[in-house]
Amino acid sequence: MAPKTGLWFIGARGSVATTATVGALALTAGLTRRTGCVTDLPEVAVARPPGVADLLIGGHDVAGDSLPKRAEALADGGVFGIELARAVHDGLTRVDARIRHGVASTDPHEPSEGTQREAVEQISRDLAGFRAAHALDRVIVVDVATTEPPVAMTPELSDLDALERALAAGESPLPASSLYAYAAFRAGCPVVAFTPSPGPRLPALAQLAERVGLPWAGSDGKTGETLVKSALAPMFATRALRVRSWASYNLLGGGDGRALADPVTVTSKTETKGKGLTELLGEPVDGPLHIDYVEDLGDWKTAWDMVSFEGFLGTKMSMQFTWQGCDSALAAPLVLDLARLVARAHQAGESGPLGALGFFFKDPAGDSGHDLAGQWRALTEWCGRLGGDR
Amino acid sequence: MAPKTGLWFIGARGSVATTATVGALALTAGLTRRTGCVTDLPEVAVARPPGVADLLIGGHDVAGDSLPKRAEALADGGVFGIELARAVHDGLTRVDARIRHGVASTDPHEPSEGTQREAVEQISRDLAGFRAAHALDRVIVVDVATTEPPVAMTPELSDLDALERALAAGESPLPASSLYAYAAFRAGCPVVAFTPSPGPRLPALAQLAERVGLPWAGSDGKTGETLVKSALAPMFATRALRVRSWASYNLLGGGDGRALADPVTVTSKTETKGKGLTELLGEPVDGPLHIDYVEDLGDWKTAWDMVSFEGFLGTKMSMQFTWQGCDSALAAPLVLDLARLVARAHQAGESGPLGALGFFFKDPAGDSGHDLAGQWRALTEWCGRLGGDR
Amino acid sequence: MAPKTGLWFIGARGSVATTATVGALALTAGLTRRTGCVTDLPEVAVARPPGVADLLIGGHDVAGDSLPKRAEALADGGVFGIELARAVHDGLTRVDARIRHGVASTDPHEPSEGTQREAVEQISRDLAGFRAAHALDRVIVVDVATTEPPVAMTPELSDLDALERALAAGESPLPASSLYAYAAFRAGCPVVAFTPSPGPRLPALAQLAERVGLPWAGSDGKTGETLVKSALAPMFATRALRVRSWASYNLLGGGDGRALADPVTVTSKTETKGKGLTELLGEPVDGPLHIDYVEDLGDWKTAWDMVSFEGFLGTKMSMQFTWQGCDSALAAPLVLDLARLVARAHQAGESGPLGALGFFFKDPAGDSGHDLAGQWRALTEWCGRLGGDR
Amino acid sequence: MAPKTGLWFIGARGSVATTATVGALALTAGLTRRTGCVTDLPEVAVARPPGVADLLIGGHDVAGDSLPKRAEALADGGVFGIELARAVHDGLTRVDARIRHGVASTDPHEPSEGTQREAVEQISRDLAGFRAAHALDRVIVVDVATTEPPVAMTPELSDLDALERALAAGESPLPASSLYAYAAFRAGCPVVAFTPSPGPRLPALAQLAERVGLPWAGSDGKTGETLVKSALAPMFATRALRVRSWASYNLLGGGDGRALADPVTVTSKTETKGKGLTELLGEPVDGPLHIDYVEDLGDWKTAWDMVSFEGFLGTKMSMQFTWQGCDSALAAPLVLDLARLVARAHQAGESGPLGALGFFFKDPAGDSGHDLAGQWRALTEWCGRLGGDR
Ligand SMILES: NC(=O)c1ccc[n+]([C@@H]2O[C@H](COP(=O)([O-])OP(=O)(O)OC[C@H]3O[C@@H](n4cnc5c(N)ncnc54)[C@H](O)[C@@H]3O)[C@@H](O)[C@H]2O)c1
Ligand SMILES: NC(=O)c1ccc[n+]([C@@H]2O[C@H](COP(=O)([O-])OP(=O)(O)OC[C@H]3O[C@@H](n4cnc5c(N)ncnc54)[C@H](O)[C@@H]3O)[C@@H](O)[C@H]2O)c1
Ligand SMILES: NC(=O)c1ccc[n+]([C@@H]2O[C@H](COP(=O)([O-])OP(=O)(O)OC[C@H]3O[C@@H](n4cnc5c(N)ncnc54)[C@H](O)[C@@H]3O)[C@@H](O)[C@H]2O)c1
Ligand SMILES: NC(=O)c1ccc[n+]([C@@H]2O[C@H](COP(=O)([O-])OP(=O)(O)OC[C@H]3O[C@@H](n4cnc5c(N)ncnc54)[C@H](O)[C@@H]3O)[C@@H](O)[C@H]2O)c1
Ligand code: NA
Ligand code: NA
Repeated sequence: MAPKTGLWFIGARGSVATTATVGALALTAGLTRRTGCVTDLPEVAVARPPGVADLLIGGHDVAGDSLPKRAEALADGGVFGIELARAVHDGLTRVDARIRHGVASTDPHEPSEGTQREAVEQISRDLAGFRAAHALDRVIVVDVATTEPPVAMTPELSDLDALERALAAGESPLPASSLYAYAAFRAGCPVVAFTPSPGPRLPALAQLAERVGLPWAGSDGKTGETLVKSALAPMFATRALRVRSWASYNLLGGGDGRALADPVTVTSKTETKGKGLTELLGEPVDGPLHIDYVEDLGDWKTAWDMVSFEGFLGTKMSMQFTWQGCDSALAAPLVLDLARLVARAHQAGESGPLGALGFFFKDPAGDSGHDLAGQWRALTEWCGRLGGDR
Repeated sequence: MAPKTGLWFIGARGSVATTATVGALALTAGLTRRTGCVTDLPEVAVARPPGVADLLIGGHDVAGDSLPKRAEALADGGVFGIELARAVHDGLTRVDARIRHGVASTDPHEPSEGTQREAVEQISRDLAGFRAAHALDRVIVVDVATTEPPVAMTPELSDLDALERALAAGESPLPASSLYAYAAFRAGCPVVAFTPSPGPRLPALAQLAERVGLPWAGSDGKTGETLVKSALAPMFATRALRVRSWASYNLLGGGDGRALADPVTVTSKTETKGKGLTELLGEPVDGPLHIDYVEDLGDWKTAWDMVSFEGFLGTKMSMQFTWQGCDSALAAPLVLDLARLVARAHQAGESGPLGALGFFFKDPAGDSGHDLAGQWRALTEWCGRLGGDR
Repeated sequence: MAPKTGLWFIGARGSVATTATVGALALTAGLTRRTGCVTDLPEVAVARPPGVADLLIGGHDVAGDSLPKRAEALADGGVFGIELARAVHDGLTRVDARIRHGVASTDPHEPSEGTQREAVEQISRDLAGFRAAHALDRVIVVDVATTEPPVAMTPELSDLDALERALAAGESPLPASSLYAYAAFRAGCPVVAFTPSPGPRLPALAQLAERVGLPWAGSDGKTGETLVKSALAPMFATRALRVRSWASYNLLGGGDGRALADPVTVTSKTETKGKGLTELLGEPVDGPLHIDYVEDLGDWKTAWDMVSFEGFLGTKMSMQFTWQGCDSALAAPLVLDLARLVARAHQAGESGPLGALGFFFKDPAGDSGHDLAGQWRALTEWCGRLGGDR
Repeated sequence: MAPKTGLWFIGARGSVATTATVGALALTAGLTRRTGCVTDLPEVAVARPPGVADLLIGGHDVAGDSLPKRAEALADGGVFGIELARAVHDGLTRVDARIRHGVASTDPHEPSEGTQREAVEQISRDLAGFRAAHALDRVIVVDVATTEPPVAMTPELSDLDALERALAAGESPLPASSLYAYAAFRAGCPVVAFTPSPGPRLPALAQLAERVGLPWAGSDGKTGETLVKSALAPMFATRALRVRSWASYNLLGGGDGRALADPVTVTSKTETKGKGLTELLGEPVDGPLHIDYVEDLGDWKTAWDMVSFEGFLGTKMSMQFTWQGCDSALAAPLVLDLARLVARAHQAGESGPLGALGFFFKDPAGDSGHDLAGQWRALTEWCGRLGGDR
């Protein structure tokens, strides 16, 4: 039986998308194990989401290298074995043929060709064409494109009607990520914001999702240091230990690292990374948070955190950890998980921000705290309910 | 109003007991903050346990140095400030006057004087005397004595009737920790096993608790590396990341470190420390677990853990952490928490192992997993129920 | 016999100066060991420098708290024991009475009262008065004041004659550290630049030292992370291992940390810290270098370094270290060492920058590399020569 | 021109030997860079040792897998790229054809076939045959076989004449590593002991080397944690900082790890690893030293060291480091370095233990301390002398 769920990447030739595509092909061909796939754990699988083999992948990108080439480069960097890359070469070529040129720039200073309304129409046509060509039940749009700098709030971004008027007037008020989200919603597609870019989180976009009755999830995949934080901080809180300072240093290379080397862009990320700690600990906590670009490290993010805390009778103690993870290998299975779970939510008729998916995000939209164990419980309870609903 | 709950330490002049006593006196006098006191968090306080000021402290020990002297030594080692030790000097002297000489040896090779039946009677008399002299509602016996080596199972340790016959026959079948627990139960006192020693966990003792209808909790306080493990391991499990090896190294000095330098005794501790990981990860995990005595470190336990794990497409990654904690400062507030919560359970008529207190232990007795967040939920739900029950 | 060598601190009530003063008094009174005193190692002692007991301490500062108060605060922060602080209380009070109000501001935006020529005269008078009052053979001026921001080079700072003309014209061309150095040289006193401030390193000042035939040493004491770097980097170099990136993160509180929280001032320090690596490794190396102010840590600097390197056949490996040191306790004995060795050099008639003291500095003046072992050899050979010279 | 120096590995199909062989072939073919090759640094190259291309490789082993297969396995484990392994496939096949079956067992409990005298003759024949077949100027025997357990000293091991009598009497007094060394010396070949096995270090063997006038070097390659120690410990010593404890933990898998998992064998290694610290610090230092076998890590040794030290005024501080190195990639270039330098020493007529090569060893034979910088100086001075001598 042919796949029924479309997975459409914005940034389809990036590291995360390429790794996810390699993984989906490898899993479908039975060439690898399901390690890292949360959706295949029994507590989540109970929701009966589509399988990885049910996903058909396409997407937008603006860059040149083909997927097989990108896969080879990632294998070189140790993200996965070169044999695996070669084994799925033909599948990659087929996905590559389904990648369309993205029409919007993430660089606010680069003038975009045409109006945003035209861009929206182009994107919507691409999405509709993809769905029709493969007779898909639904298409989930997943943003894994380059992180954008933060945007200043304007009336057009805060209110859907104002936004519609601006677009109708030929203006270009949207950052690229939100333009894609706008087009996706207009084309009837749920959205996953895996990046810290504004995407569907702008109030005007969230209103649109509500109005058209579509579910979405976000934002910024929680794959490394922030993941550890969300597991550790509750330990201090429930043990009544007072965290005095928490310093976080991140080193990474790769395309993501290069984008985050920009002092403005990086604030999108440091904001989502920083958000949780105050909530988890019940009070603001001192300490620097840096993300530094070190080309040499490639996809191998290294993070060091130093937590200084106070115990009984004021005694000062500390804990530090070093995380050495392969960013794309951590992100890719989550991207597949999210596409499958959002597809299931769409099938079940859910709409608006899916708070139950907070487990996957640094800056969860909807009703979700930052505590990893609490997020896991919320996720599995939601999956249980979806599983019961036939 | 006079305190109504007795807190009776086995090992009353040890580091943990001394720090707990200093802390109880300092809190009662308003000289310090409640940092580290889990029972004062709102989700636990809802159970309405006795306050710290309601505790009257006494105990057994077999060693010489007085509590004020022990407190000064701990202050020297940086466990708390010397000013604090001096401020509670008189209170310590009063507690010290309530410490009785323990009658049982923890060293199986050292012949104990008299029969164990006589020892039991002596201990029970001490406990009853303490309760009567201060008109206490109840006395909670908390074992914070030197860790004992593991025991070989025998019929007397497995079955209460066999044990009673052996004691009646003048035999000495019990390790010291279990002898204390036996005497405590006979004297109507709930028991907290804060050490990995057998104590109330021997089947014969658990039967006795059931028969006399008394609650107990144990065992082995979860204060450092194992605490972190129980917060981190679920992160790997719920993210479907496969832990390939987990190495755990612990360095510590102090009295506890000296006892654990014994290659037999230490197995009591490495067993309780090792138990959780298999359950938390769903499969046995390779990797060494060492506890090394380094005199120089004193109470300042340093632990280093190295976790090697596999993610999507077989990619190998790692995480390591260093924990630098003051063992006694971490243990002391938990000891007060446990005394207060077990007192509350006794008042509410609970009996047998209190699974809801698994949050505090490396090797939880009763119905409790090892997952810290799950234990926290179980604890707070139980407290909510106790709070509702008047 | 009365002390014969004056030790004059600029920043005499700062953490480093206070710790050095406490230490000098404690050593003289036989209350502590010589741990950390390089000059008392046989290979250095051979130079026959004055003893610690031969030092008489005075200085300039611009801040209020008295030395006994500063010592108490440092003891609170764990730099040394409170008993020690109390034992030397009277000695501290005597030194405090020898502290004069500094006349120059380190803040370029704060208008200084009077001309710099007047300030020079004031400082020189203070130094001459100190020497005369105590019949000292010589006075060594040691700058341990707040770090200054870098200065832009001007003709007055580059050339002594231009400087003299400017001063004569009533101008104020000098940063405070260099003003002190100017006055010291004019008063016949050798100078030690323990900070990264310009001090005696400006070309005009170095010319002055040469002209008046005085020795000086600097700059920026090498006490922590940079010390480790200078021991480790040669390992990579002599093993032909190629360092690909070296990331350095420093966390500290205290007065020094507060000053370095200023984004401009901190560049003085990051520059001296960064200088050595390129030389030690033979090529520039990528990687961030941060100094972050974390109030909570006080004097307890924590540094984490991550070295990524390449070995045979291009294999990538890594090493990381965490340094947890008490900055003032590391700096103080070096300050005493430097005063003693510079006094000895002065006695022996040396002048100009003392390259043989590069062992003590992040940014060594004179003829010295950055390699710690090489610096040690240079130091001990120089001491051997001084020892032979009678 | 044909190679003139034979490099004969004991353990020729082990990880270290295979990596060295891959590397020698790759360097000769210009496929890789000289990273890690100490002998190609100018200060060492001045000695004019033979080039890597001048080495012809052969050896003994007792195990089955061919060199190309071993290389593929090592590439799988990430020691080098699979492309490199394939590029030198034919060269590896040619070296493999020069590997002879070793005749001695390293397991003292496994009965060896034949007398040791016969084994010696066999080995000597293999060596002489290798030299003759390829018209080599000299053959350097390098022991990179499985580590042996320590031996108990006996008269035969302590005295050459006693040893000769025992061999003549058909006895088997020698551990395998020393049997190989004996045969090598008898065949006129210099020896490098890269393992902690007794090899040429037994007094009887050292006498033999002296008698036949051959140079040798050893023992136990210094490639990881001990290397770092020998760079760091002098920092503490020359700064007069008192090391209070130094804990060393090593995790590794691979063949070497498996051999060291044996509780007796590992003492050979912990002894060589432990030796230096006392000398470097001038006094014995407390602290555990463990080597743990963790299969999962393969060749990727991870070591964590925790140094607790005391500074001025008794202040306690600490430093910790984590070393993540690929053992074989670190060892292989040193093995080539040693073969080249010992060949040069042989050519120059040196004999006995080459103290100047202490730079390469954990437990240096001959006149050499453990201080890395001092060893580097000794090495380069020796090279300078060799270079001057024509
Ligand atoms: N662990 C992780 O890797 C992780 C975790 C959380 C979030 N993220 C986010 O995921 C995103 C992707 O990360 P990556 O490592 O794959 O980065 P990458 O640089 O490898 O890939 C980004 C891709 O987006 C494409 N792109 C840029 N602008 C576009 C546009 N306007 N339209 C379409 N495509 C566009 C680029 O050409 C590139 O192919 C980043 O925003 C990153 O912050 C990654
Ligand atoms: N973080 C922690 O400190 C922590 C955590 C979990 C468990 N524990 C356990 O708590 C116990 C106490 O630790 P500590 O650091 O206070 O040790 P300690 O050595 O300072 O104190 C133990 C005390 O027990 C006394 N004692 C020994 N045998 C006795 C007997 N038969 N009867 C009465 N008293 C006896 C000793 O005299 C000593 O005063 C240890 O078993 C330890 O493993 C401690
Ligand atoms: N390990 C170390 O502590 C270390 C190492 C290298 C360099 N240093 C340098 O040593 C200096 C002192 O460090 P600290 O921790 O003692 O700092 P601190 O802030 O505790 O002390 C600085 C002192 O200088 C005084 N001061 C400021 N401006 C002055 C002026 N114009 N004239 C006279 N006094 C003035 C301040 O009032 C203060 O008392 C800093 O520049 C620091 O960078 C310290
Ligand atoms: N960084 C390092 O890798 C390093 C550093 C110092 C010392 N060493 C030492 O080098 C040696 C080799 O390490 P490895 O990782 O290659 O180990 P390995 O297990 O991969 O290889 C050892 C080889 O020796 C062979 N062997 C065993 N007994 C033999 C005998 N009697 N005659 C001939 N061959 C025999 C084995 O068959 C095997 O092929 C070990 O002793 C190790 O301790 C290695
Ligand atoms: Na990435
Ligand atoms: Na300082």
